Amino acid sequence: MSAAASTVSTAPSSPRQYPMFDDLHIASGATTPERRLSLGDLPPSPLPSGKHRIAVIGSGSWGTALAKIAAENAARHADMFEPTVNMWVREKQVNGKKLTEVINKTHTNQRYLPDVSLPANLIAVPRLPDVVRNATLIVFVTPHQFLPTVISDLKRAGAIHPQARAVSAIKGVEVEGSEIKTFASVIERDLSIPCSALSGANIALEVALEQFCETTIGCPSAADSALWHAVFDAHSFRVTCVEDVNGVSLGGALKNVVALAAGFVDGLRLGGNTKAAILRIGLKEMTEFCLEFFEGAQRNTFSNESAGVADLITTCYGGRNRKCAEEFVKSGASFDDIERRLLNGQKLQGTATAEEVHAFLKAHGRVAAYPLFERVYQIAFNGMPPAQLVKGL
Amino acid sequence: MSAAASTVSTAPSSPRQYPMFDDLHIASGATTPERRLSLGDLPPSPLPSGKHRIAVIGSGSWGTALAKIAAENAARHADMFEPTVNMWVREKQVNGKKLTEVINKTHTNQRYLPDVSLPANLIAVPRLPDVVRNATLIVFVTPHQFLPTVISDLKRAGAIHPQARAVSAIKGVEVEGSEIKTFASVIERDLSIPCSALSGANIALEVALEQFCETTIGCPSAADSALWHAVFDAHSFRVTCVEDVNGVSLGGALKNVVALAAGFVDGLRLGGNTKAAILRIGLKEMTEFCLEFFEGAQRNTFSNESAGVADLITTCYGGRNRKCAEEFVKSGASFDDIERRLLNGQKLQGTATAEEVHAFLKAHGRVAAYPLFERVYQIAFNGMPPAQLVKGL
Repeated sequence: MSAAASTVSTAPSSPRQYPMFDDLHIASGATTPERRLSLGDLPPSPLPSGKHRIAVIGSGSWGTALAKIAAENAARHADMFEPTVNMWVREKQVNGKKLTEVINKTHTNQRYLPDVSLPANLIAVPRLPDVVRNATLIVFVTPHQFLPTVISDLKRAGAIHPQARAVSAIKGVEVEGSEIKTFASVIERDLSIPCSALSGANIALEVALEQFCETTIGCPSAADSALWHAVFDAHSFRVTCVEDVNGVSLGGALKNVVALAAGFVDGLRLGGNTKAAILRIGLKEMTEFCLEFFEGAQRNTFSNESAGVADLITTCYGGRNRKCAEEFVKSGASFDDIERRLLNGQKLQGTATAEEVHAFLKAHGRVAAYPLFERVYQIAFNGMPPAQLVKGL
Repeated sequence: MSAAASTVSTAPSSPRQYPMFDDLHIASGATTPERRLSLGDLPPSPLPSGKHRIAVIGSGSWGTALAKIAAENAARHADMFEPTVNMWVREKQVNGKKLTEVINKTHTNQRYLPDVSLPANLIAVPRLPDVVRNATLIVFVTPHQFLPTVISDLKRAGAIHPQARAVSAIKGVEVEGSEIKTFASVIERDLSIPCSALSGANIALEVALEQFCETTIGCPSAADSALWHAVFDAHSFRVTCVEDVNGVSLGGALKNVVALAAGFVDGLRLGGNTKAAILRIGLKEMTEFCLEFFEGAQRNTFSNESAGVADLITTCYGGRNRKCAEEFVKSGASFDDIERRLLNGQKLQGTATAEEVHAFLKAHGRVAAYPLFERVYQIAFNGMPPAQLVKGL
């Protein structure tokens, strides 16, 4: 139905091996995945089979949803991918049985994604080095606090193929003093393999139920772009690749700070005008922050892509950061209290990121340039009355 | 609190008479209105007093909310504006009394904006020529179907000051065959005065209750920009002026087509991922439509301003277009039925605009380039199953 479809050439006339960014942008909405790529379009695999092998590190709801799509695409494109996709599952006992065995027998992840059937070629594997052995495409989707251990275990085992590529679907950023790092850059640095970043308006359960949605993958090269597009693009999970790893990573982190502001607005019982203004200003600060501190970040990633504006919208209308911030205003309780009460003691991403962004901006003398981020921090941690959020903003 | 504040010069060193667009962009979030402008900053008034006189044509909830702000600013900036702001009210009887007299005595518009106090210098006037006599700044905020009559009455009376300027806060577009026109351009053409356009995430009641929000004014020149900024910018109603009358006008019209799509998603009980994807794709089609068919339209108006992304968000999460579209899917009734049942027979903006946009695109052979707009039209008018909205989009 898209006019762009008529301009997509299925037989490229140039000798290059894989589609460029622009082709993938056009292709993502234009044709079915089956017609889009063949092995010849992809960068070659270093494995003897000539095929790529996918591994997924993480098996929470988001990890399992991504693993499901990757395994379905691997099965569908048998000419491009090894059929089996390994998924790392930290072994647990579920009703007296090993979780990996339950997953591999029932093809459901009853702990984190019940009621969703997983493909038979998705294999739960308990030992981390076994997961990634001979994998050329590794998806990192653990909770961020486990990443350092995962990386050091992988390094110790020497299990990473030297020509592997990674993608990070881990949300958040890491701040140390005046340094800020995305998890994609941490993976790239510590494992010496290129790392892309995947983020978008992607509530895990809705993705797993195959409700139509979109995602964005920021890739360091067109080769990464072609491969990750082939791994993840599906009929109800539309992938757009952009050349902006940092922008995609930061979108997924900073949106949670804006979601706290949106929750404060809801808690103050202000209406849709104010909330929309907060989202607009938040999107602007997210963009400016990324452009100021990350070389090569692109404005369009925020204004046009799922990882920017769309993810921000979903998070500010649903999601637990918004919800807990609303409760913060209505109850007057601290975030520690609310986390204990509503999240079983799990920590909110938004408050952690607000604190880290504040520390980072302070170290750079730039707090005043980001008034919304700063007010969220002051309200959450320093007793600023929530009604101050919008005063003279 | 904004770092940008430190770069705003209150005493411009250049000899120009009024701030340029960029200054207003920066100023809108940086200083209080009181400090921002003085008479010397504004383009001169052609009136003997040297002051500008504001008139408002329209007194529905949105007209009254805008008139309230304009009158408050006129009173506050007594050096720049004549104190009295006239507002055209079509005379009606309310409990046996004339509506104009009730408004002028009680300083509330009990019919369209009850419970909101209006300033004493806002005067309800029943005869249209009396409203605009000697007005240099005229706000058009009638329902769009009344505009032709209003314009011909004004022309017949010869009541418009030849150096007056107008701003249109009327939503929608007018399509005739292969021609599409904004109401700002109709006013400008028929009355031979420059016409700006005001639009944003502005639910009237919330604006009148002084909940923090933002709006955008698209202006044909920096002089218009300076004047309309002075008329409307307030502590809880932040104005940004942009040099894009068409983009601002189209944002307010096309958002309603996307809101129907958002309502279909809600009616199908799809989740936040799908809705966010629809908003992202909708914003993209709105932008492309405007760039394709309106010279001088700017991408940033949609991606950055209240009239673009923020208004779209509010309308797709609240608002009657969304609500009626949800009901359309859930009940299986026609829009005519739903309008009778839920809107007392009033017509939806979104369906009218979807029909006009379809006719216009068809006349230009460009239907296929706007798949979301087209599917909304097909679902609303041609029996396409709503679930087709997102299939392969």
